[in-house]
Amino acid sequence: MSVEPFPREGRPEFDAGFRRRFNTLLVWRRDVRRFRPDPLPDGAVERLIAAACLSPSVGLSEPWRFVLVEDAKRRTAIRQCFEACNQGALAGQSEDRAALYARLKLAGLDDAPVQLSVFCDRGTLQGHGLGCRTMPETLDYSVAIAIHTLWLAARAEGVGVGWVSILDPTRMTEILDVPAGWRFIAHLCIGYPQGEDDVPALQRAGWEQRQNPAQLLVRR
Amino acid sequence: MSVEPFPREGRPEFDAGFRRRFNTLLVWRRDVRRFRPDPLPDGAVERLIAAACLSPSVGLSEPWRFVLVEDAKRRTAIRQCFEACNQGALAGQSEDRAALYARLKLAGLDDAPVQLSVFCDRGTLQGHGLGCRTMPETLDYSVAIAIHTLWLAARAEGVGVGWVSILDPTRMTEILDVPAGWRFIAHLCIGYPQGEDDVPALQRAGWEQRQNPAQLLVRR
Repeated sequence: MSVEPFPREGRPEFDAGFRRRFNTLLVWRRDVRRFRPDPLPDGAVERLIAAACLSPSVGLSEPWRFVLVEDAKRRTAIRQCFEACNQGALAGQSEDRAALYARLKLAGLDDAPVQLSVFCDRGTLQGHGLGCRTMPETLDYSVAIAIHTLWLAARAEGVGVGWVSILDPTRMTEILDVPAGWRFIAHLCIGYPQGEDDVPALQRAGWEQRQNPAQLLVRR
Repeated sequence: MSVEPFPREGRPEFDAGFRRRFNTLLVWRRDVRRFRPDPLPDGAVERLIAAACLSPSVGLSEPWRFVLVEDAKRRTAIRQCFEACNQGALAGQSEDRAALYARLKLAGLDDAPVQLSVFCDRGTLQGHGLGCRTMPETLDYSVAIAIHTLWLAARAEGVGVGWVSILDPTRMTEILDVPAGWRFIAHLCIGYPQGEDDVPALQRAGWEQRQNPAQLLVRR
């Protein structure tokens, strides 16, 4: 129990006040790209990972693996990987969009004090394969969900997270020298954000806007 | 804004009390298999989907698509799909495990008042492909995260969610007659749970137990 970030509470009643605050957490979470350089407090990363490990996983397989990237050479290699992939991404966009895209400053790789790569151990024996036979990709989904848990727990501490996906997964496993069978899911930049907002940065930048949820529901 | 489940609040401060309650939400969320048959209140499903739509998505692509399964014939076909896949899953387990597995009552398909399938629109133009070029699977991850948001929002209302993954994705797209290009991510059973617990059902049943989060972190 000592590894959990908070003492356990008994059978909970979540009241309307909590639900409203939780919704506010969802509304003010952001994919952060601009960070202050201040370090996080000692133990913060471990506490966020402990929260992430409370996430659901298929068959209780807990396939999430966290790699704290501290080595300067590896950080440089990740930055180079991002730059190479970003060039390719720019080439795939129309000229107007490419200019906007370039301005979006897609990575906090230069400023965020913490960089955390997250992998899925596709070969884990934990969970004995339950629920994975017809859909092995549910292992990856479990890891994505754990990242989201970490993201929300961070936001509740005033800490921002930015998910970098413009990377080559195979190259990331090489750079970080992880065991064979680990599948790259995400590279996270973590630190205190320069600002807070309740509107996604991509929407503020005119890239895209959110849809009405009612349009995303069909009945069968 | 009217489609959002709660009125917007201004720039938030999340205090220690909120963080503790949020952690309690993570601890008491469960993958629910045993439901009471009572229906959810009118509008509850739409409210949960609106919360889910506050999730992050790659490039603000919002690729999540929700299919509320109401038709009795389609529900029966999904149950049959589960039974066929479950037989295959049983065959893949050792005899002891198979007996335990059979007792786990893996699906709430018979009792849950609400069944919601969730798909990823891999062909969406929303987001203009930002962040998806090297890792198109991030679209699927966005949907998995939206499911997790719905799950937490439901738990905060006292509503349980069970994720059924012992299904054939191709067959699910046929049964639910969804547009080409929609990829099946999850089938959710939703309703009031018969009980509450802070320990995963699979751990209580002796199937598997959680690991110490410290063992899932490496440094590079």
